[in-house]
Amino acid sequence: MAVQPILINGEWKKADAVRHFQAENPATKKPLSDEYPVSSWKDCDEALDAAVVAAEELRSLSGAKIASFLERYAERIEARADDLVEMGNAETGLAKSPRLADAELPRTTNQLRQAAESARNESWRVATIDTKAGIRSAYGSLGPVCVFGPNNFPFAFGSISGGDFAAAIAAGNPVIAKANSSHPGTTRIFAEEAMKAVEDTGLPKATVQLIYRTGHADGEKLVADPRNGATGYTGSRGAGLKLKEAADKAGNPIYLELSSINPVAILPGALEERFDEIVEEFKGSCLLGAGQFCTNPGLVILMKGGKTDAFIDAVAKKFDDAPVHTLLSKGVQEGLADSLKILKDAGAELITGGKSGAGEGYSQSNTLLSVSGSKFLAKPEELQSEAFGNTSLVVVADDTNQARDILRVLEGNLTACIYSHTGGDDDKLYDTLAPYLRQNAGRLLNDKMPTGVAVSPAMNHGGPYPATGHPGFTAVGIPASIIRFGMLQSFDNVRPHRLPSYLQDKNPNGEMWRLIDLEWTTSDVK
Amino acid sequence: MAVQPILINGEWKKADAVRHFQAENPATKKPLSDEYPVSSWKDCDEALDAAVVAAEELRSLSGAKIASFLERYAERIEARADDLVEMGNAETGLAKSPRLADAELPRTTNQLRQAAESARNESWRVATIDTKAGIRSAYGSLGPVCVFGPNNFPFAFGSISGGDFAAAIAAGNPVIAKANSSHPGTTRIFAEEAMKAVEDTGLPKATVQLIYRTGHADGEKLVADPRNGATGYTGSRGAGLKLKEAADKAGNPIYLELSSINPVAILPGALEERFDEIVEEFKGSCLLGAGQFCTNPGLVILMKGGKTDAFIDAVAKKFDDAPVHTLLSKGVQEGLADSLKILKDAGAELITGGKSGAGEGYSQSNTLLSVSGSKFLAKPEELQSEAFGNTSLVVVADDTNQARDILRVLEGNLTACIYSHTGGDDDKLYDTLAPYLRQNAGRLLNDKMPTGVAVSPAMNHGGPYPATGHPGFTAVGIPASIIRFGMLQSFDNVRPHRLPSYLQDKNPNGEMWRLIDLEWTTSDVK
Repeated sequence: MAVQPILINGEWKKADAVRHFQAENPATKKPLSDEYPVSSWKDCDEALDAAVVAAEELRSLSGAKIASFLERYAERIEARADDLVEMGNAETGLAKSPRLADAELPRTTNQLRQAAESARNESWRVATIDTKAGIRSAYGSLGPVCVFGPNNFPFAFGSISGGDFAAAIAAGNPVIAKANSSHPGTTRIFAEEAMKAVEDTGLPKATVQLIYRTGHADGEKLVADPRNGATGYTGSRGAGLKLKEAADKAGNPIYLELSSINPVAILPGALEERFDEIVEEFKGSCLLGAGQFCTNPGLVILMKGGKTDAFIDAVAKKFDDAPVHTLLSKGVQEGLADSLKILKDAGAELITGGKSGAGEGYSQSNTLLSVSGSKFLAKPEELQSEAFGNTSLVVVADDTNQARDILRVLEGNLTACIYSHTGGDDDKLYDTLAPYLRQNAGRLLNDKMPTGVAVSPAMNHGGPYPATGHPGFTAVGIPASIIRFGMLQSFDNVRPHRLPSYLQDKNPNGEMWRLIDLEWTTSDVK
Repeated sequence: MAVQPILINGEWKKADAVRHFQAENPATKKPLSDEYPVSSWKDCDEALDAAVVAAEELRSLSGAKIASFLERYAERIEARADDLVEMGNAETGLAKSPRLADAELPRTTNQLRQAAESARNESWRVATIDTKAGIRSAYGSLGPVCVFGPNNFPFAFGSISGGDFAAAIAAGNPVIAKANSSHPGTTRIFAEEAMKAVEDTGLPKATVQLIYRTGHADGEKLVADPRNGATGYTGSRGAGLKLKEAADKAGNPIYLELSSINPVAILPGALEERFDEIVEEFKGSCLLGAGQFCTNPGLVILMKGGKTDAFIDAVAKKFDDAPVHTLLSKGVQEGLADSLKILKDAGAELITGGKSGAGEGYSQSNTLLSVSGSKFLAKPEELQSEAFGNTSLVVVADDTNQARDILRVLEGNLTACIYSHTGGDDDKLYDTLAPYLRQNAGRLLNDKMPTGVAVSPAMNHGGPYPATGHPGFTAVGIPASIIRFGMLQSFDNVRPHRLPSYLQDKNPNGEMWRLIDLEWTTSDVK
């Protein structure tokens, strides 16, 4: 059984491995055949050195050149779709179709192409020109970016294919990808195609590099290294906070997506009006991808009385009737069981589900719990534990005041939803509750479940801590996500011919939006 | 001798003081008459509670209302100018004129008025509308902001009057100001006028609050408190890093301006061409405000040979001939002496100056040191110690390669300057060196010293760590500095009448720039 090589400075080479690991097929619980190395610091060190050289070259390339790579890579991914879907399914248990082939893969290539478009027109730079003061500024490339991808989106959030990758490259930075250990083979196929696209388009050879795994200490050393420009991390809160601590201490930016329970408040009038529809939407959003979405609705707030008990019963029945999907890994199954115990110990009652191994491979029966508002307020921290998977907790509030108190103690989340009566019956309650949900979440939704995360310029896939590490940035949406990997650079009295093309008088491509004397325009400087 | 009250929730009240302190006149070395409290946690706690209430109200106010406060406050500052200048001079030793009355005070009111303009037109929000996806986003108010001001700009960077204050308020947040202990009286006068402006314009009473000082542990607790939205800090690296650690751990954004030695490379052709002019400019920039500027040129890189020795001699003579100004405090004088020792121990030679107490009150003779490029490269960390005051270190590089190596080891800085021959004699060297300076500094200048920091939309008063805590943000320049105190908020499928006015179809004021379907416009949504 061969150990897979890592990708350093344009070459697939034997890792300096401290040990090896295998991925497991979560549906069969059997290890997959390939072995992957756990790299020593030596591999990280080499990747960083190569990335620094690549960064120096990349930051002087035109946006069009960067764009050509992203587009070529998207084409190569499409040509390799069958392999990716096959491997992705084997490593994650996610359905080949529609999930991997028809939803996540097109999302991934679409995202790369949107990033290419932004790299080409360069509007993401927020070029700002003050002709009177003779000062011009824009976001420039920051330097090497380390990307740690999550387990739940092997394509669209993959460390060498997903949103952080696309944003970091579009900003003109090389990426050192750290594969998620649950899908190293999928990551390898992406890296193969990315490297070929680098060669096809003549980018610096260390533009994309791949390490499968490191020890924890080396991971922390990597994000804190002075050669590293920034880090993108999506994953568990525990591991993320360790990396955050190391990066923060070194003064290196790190963008994290850590955890979110995505509260959904369903107001009484909405239940009166659209009972069946909401039951169905909620069930669908909860169980999509076996609930393994960062925006999975893990907490539902209902008002006592009215159709609330009927709603809980109806959802429980739907949960029982729905198929039990395979979870991503043994770790996810165990994590779910642990979270369930925390929730139950804190006073939540199991309505249905809660059984480990109820489906094919790693799995848990679709699970619904409930708790009263007063019990929730007695143990708000425990009852906000993220149960990552097909599990949701209903909180039933006694009255408006209690509902507001519940919203007040919520931690930061990626999303918050409110369902309300279309005729206005819930408007007073909406107005009371919405401000609290608004301040605790990056994205507020009306009458819609949070699991769809459109790649839109207006998307905010972010939110206050601990959903992320900073409430001002989004991980999804272009061009907004790109500036995370830029540094603000001001040019004061710099001679015109020495300015980067995007800050010279002439608009570099006729399409770039620039803020000239406080007016946005695609024109040249007059 | 009365102890001055603190300003909490609209009232000037007796602090819960753990002890008291007095400011000192650095020119006379005599304590000033007023006593100020060092607050216990109880005061911080009350301020936070009040700020949370104010934040809830403030974030729903119109930009015009916020603007009216900022403008009213600017007027009140102007009416109180004599008191401010008198007190500022007594507490800091900075000249009444032109420095305080004619430079810093107009800068301060101008900055408040620019912030008002931004608050009114709301363009700072980066409102982004995706009509097809039904998603709209913008920066909203983040919540209470703590501001820690530095010692060196009692007006323009003051905790209740300066750039961080103006930006935090413009973003619709209340401010808890922590006075700098070296000028509590100046801060008090500002707070009096700010509070009156709050009353004049009907803003929530805890919009502005003032605490003079806390123990270190309480300061860290304050920035880390969940009720705190973000912190702006300008000051010493040591104290700043303690606050950063506490804030980072809590996931609260903190924007820091920590230290910077602002490298200036003067290329041989420039010296040949404009010798006298550059000597004069350099001397002026070095000694301005006794060198107590965040952008003071503390490191000068020259190439061996040519007019380099003559330059050093000429600057030394200018330093000797120039008056020795009073430093801000005993601490600054002691800090300078400590830094000088570090620099000398690491191999720097004293060319001139270096004498503590050479002028009126706390002072040090104007000081120039030099070191060879190879010695610099042997102890780069020590030789980058910031000597905050009228002190600069010349590094003489043997050749281009060594000059590049020197630039490569530089830490992050706020600014970097290159002087070069206007006819192109230095162009090759410029092209070799500029990329390194560019990546290590927030603002790159040509043929101009770094001490002027224009309040321009294109200004970047920021830079890579350890100049600041994040390379993507600026502390000076409007509207860019405002977004530091905003949170990104996305509205997905939210009913039109529930959207904030700045995201509704109609442009809220006809002037707000919004990114609608990837086009910047001041028009309504079609």
